[in-house]
Amino acid sequence: MKGIVLLGSTGSIGRQTLEVLRAFPQEFRVRGLAANTSRELLLRQAWETRPEAVWCGDGLDANALPPGTRCVDSMEDLVLLPDVHLVVVATVGLSGLKPTLASLRRGIPVALANKETIVSAGPLVMAESARTGTPILPIDSEPSAIWQCLLGEKQEPSRLILTASGGAFRTRPLHELATVTPEEALRHPTWKMGKKITIDSATLMNKAFEVIEAHWLFGIPWERIAVVLHPQSIVHSMVEFADGSVKAQLGVPDMRIPIQYALFYPRRMPNASLPRLDFCSPLTLVFEPLDTHRYPSFPLALEAGKRGGTFPAVLNGADEVAVALFLQRRIAFTDIPILVQRALEAHNPIPNPSVEDIVEADAWARREVLRMVEARR
Amino acid sequence: MKGIVLLGSTGSIGRQTLEVLRAFPQEFRVRGLAANTSRELLLRQAWETRPEAVWCGDGLDANALPPGTRCVDSMEDLVLLPDVHLVVVATVGLSGLKPTLASLRRGIPVALANKETIVSAGPLVMAESARTGTPILPIDSEPSAIWQCLLGEKQEPSRLILTASGGAFRTRPLHELATVTPEEALRHPTWKMGKKITIDSATLMNKAFEVIEAHWLFGIPWERIAVVLHPQSIVHSMVEFADGSVKAQLGVPDMRIPIQYALFYPRRMPNASLPRLDFCSPLTLVFEPLDTHRYPSFPLALEAGKRGGTFPAVLNGADEVAVALFLQRRIAFTDIPILVQRALEAHNPIPNPSVEDIVEADAWARREVLRMVEARR
Repeated sequence: MKGIVLLGSTGSIGRQTLEVLRAFPQEFRVRGLAANTSRELLLRQAWETRPEAVWCGDGLDANALPPGTRCVDSMEDLVLLPDVHLVVVATVGLSGLKPTLASLRRGIPVALANKETIVSAGPLVMAESARTGTPILPIDSEPSAIWQCLLGEKQEPSRLILTASGGAFRTRPLHELATVTPEEALRHPTWKMGKKITIDSATLMNKAFEVIEAHWLFGIPWERIAVVLHPQSIVHSMVEFADGSVKAQLGVPDMRIPIQYALFYPRRMPNASLPRLDFCSPLTLVFEPLDTHRYPSFPLALEAGKRGGTFPAVLNGADEVAVALFLQRRIAFTDIPILVQRALEAHNPIPNPSVEDIVEADAWARREVLRMVEARR
Repeated sequence: MKGIVLLGSTGSIGRQTLEVLRAFPQEFRVRGLAANTSRELLLRQAWETRPEAVWCGDGLDANALPPGTRCVDSMEDLVLLPDVHLVVVATVGLSGLKPTLASLRRGIPVALANKETIVSAGPLVMAESARTGTPILPIDSEPSAIWQCLLGEKQEPSRLILTASGGAFRTRPLHELATVTPEEALRHPTWKMGKKITIDSATLMNKAFEVIEAHWLFGIPWERIAVVLHPQSIVHSMVEFADGSVKAQLGVPDMRIPIQYALFYPRRMPNASLPRLDFCSPLTLVFEPLDTHRYPSFPLALEAGKRGGTFPAVLNGADEVAVALFLQRRIAFTDIPILVQRALEAHNPIPNPSVEDIVEADAWARREVLRMVEARR
């Protein structure tokens, strides 16, 4: 049985990971669960899966835990449990960085849904992965698609082509974007996801994060990663090879498919509860070039990724706070890239940052965005 | 240098194979060329590539050959030349069967564009490939797509999904099909190919041949091979896996891409002369279920494939003559499936046929179709 530690078990990816694990009781054993909030749900998950240990950011009453399950002080403690064979990092923000590094250090493969980790600390994470020869298995649907398309190929691809749904406002008149509401922005056309990533999909910040993630995960130069709009979210991404041949991975937009792929890799397991593309009805797939006027966050974020150092950490921290402020109706949708840009401009970058430098840059960016918004009043 | 024997060098696939070979003079050496007709072109090709030997169905004047090149008596003789590492079978009809078997017997991989060989004699060809451990590398774009999508996958796919352009008459009113002309039928919407295969695309006979080919090449049961109409011919085929994930291979409809893939497999080589998909302009890909009322040849041919024995050889021989008669304006387009069906009905099948049985069934079917058409006068 494969021992699993699941960090971020109460979020959207965490819950769907448990759904997949539940379908294969003979294959997996949950060794550890962690959640920052949602204590009640975490307890229910612990009673169901009976892990050796749990961690909750909000604290837990040890008496509420099932017999045989204990509390630990940090997510890193979960990674250090015995009989752990895969750590699923499905946390939000930078909290996944330290447990990811701890897992790689121990030689335990990481199934990574938390792209902020690799966006903020790509060189550090990839260096640890290379040093210990421990793989990072992407869970996000786009890098999973690329990973699947690269399987068995002997040579580096000539181009990665990431698809983007375009989010909630792909066809919205540009002059209306300043007044859109959080409810409208949360209406993603194809994917049901957490709030933060849904807003990041509407700004296309999320797609820039994925370009940065793909750059580090697959070691492909920036100029060979393209993004194309694909409103149906059926083609999850594509890879072009030196001979002009392109491979694509397709599927119903359902995160359980890439989650299961990462959990079982390199095996593919039958799972009747996973949806299948239906070719018995007409299907139309559209691909369109990206209009950066509509998505100013995209070039902004990509530039921060390319500059490297602590810039990506600032990008990530600033965006997280800006999105939260938008969801609280304290700023307009169109303020998100403006605030992120100002934070990037105000930042004193550190080249080749340490984990602490990255954590500090992220925290600074959060404070800076809040400060700017407070100052506007 | 990889020594190549190219059978069918003057046809559409043969000429495009030479184009690819020409782009890599350091990689390949043409050891043998064969063509049934087009003697002049064959001579020009021989002067360009300086093979050790050539064969021409129409006969050749040995004095017209370049120094160092000789004539042989059959295509099998070319396969037996020294320093041959790959035999490209791009002939038409059943003529590719014996050289394919000879090549497999010698342990030389076969790059197969001549699907009639595998349609008529699938079990024989696959048994020889298995016995000698010699691979058959598909050149046709659909099986090449499937082969590329299966690369590196550990498990059998749950489904192969072959795409079909639908040919020249996909949207033509059904009642007009009886009076369409050869010129109209030869106007393929996306691919520029030889005449026989272009007519087979209009009837969808070609797609049934590809299902039969895929069944034998990849060892997938009939009920797990689907066909979907895709008028743009950009997605060349798809593979669905047990977990609901689908991989597709895409590209500009240009046979040089799958030809080069087979020539270099498992390497992919940069070739600036091969076209690339352009994602900078909008692209729409449509998939539609197949309407067998429009394409009666399809279920008919598939049934013959499933019945096996000498039926597929009869299917193939009957279709070849019926297509030729249509091109000569001696029968209507809608007569093609009728004649093929009658030949299949009149046939006394032989189970587990030998090569001779297959050749004889093919010849019988040709005579039978001609006889039926003569009898109508």
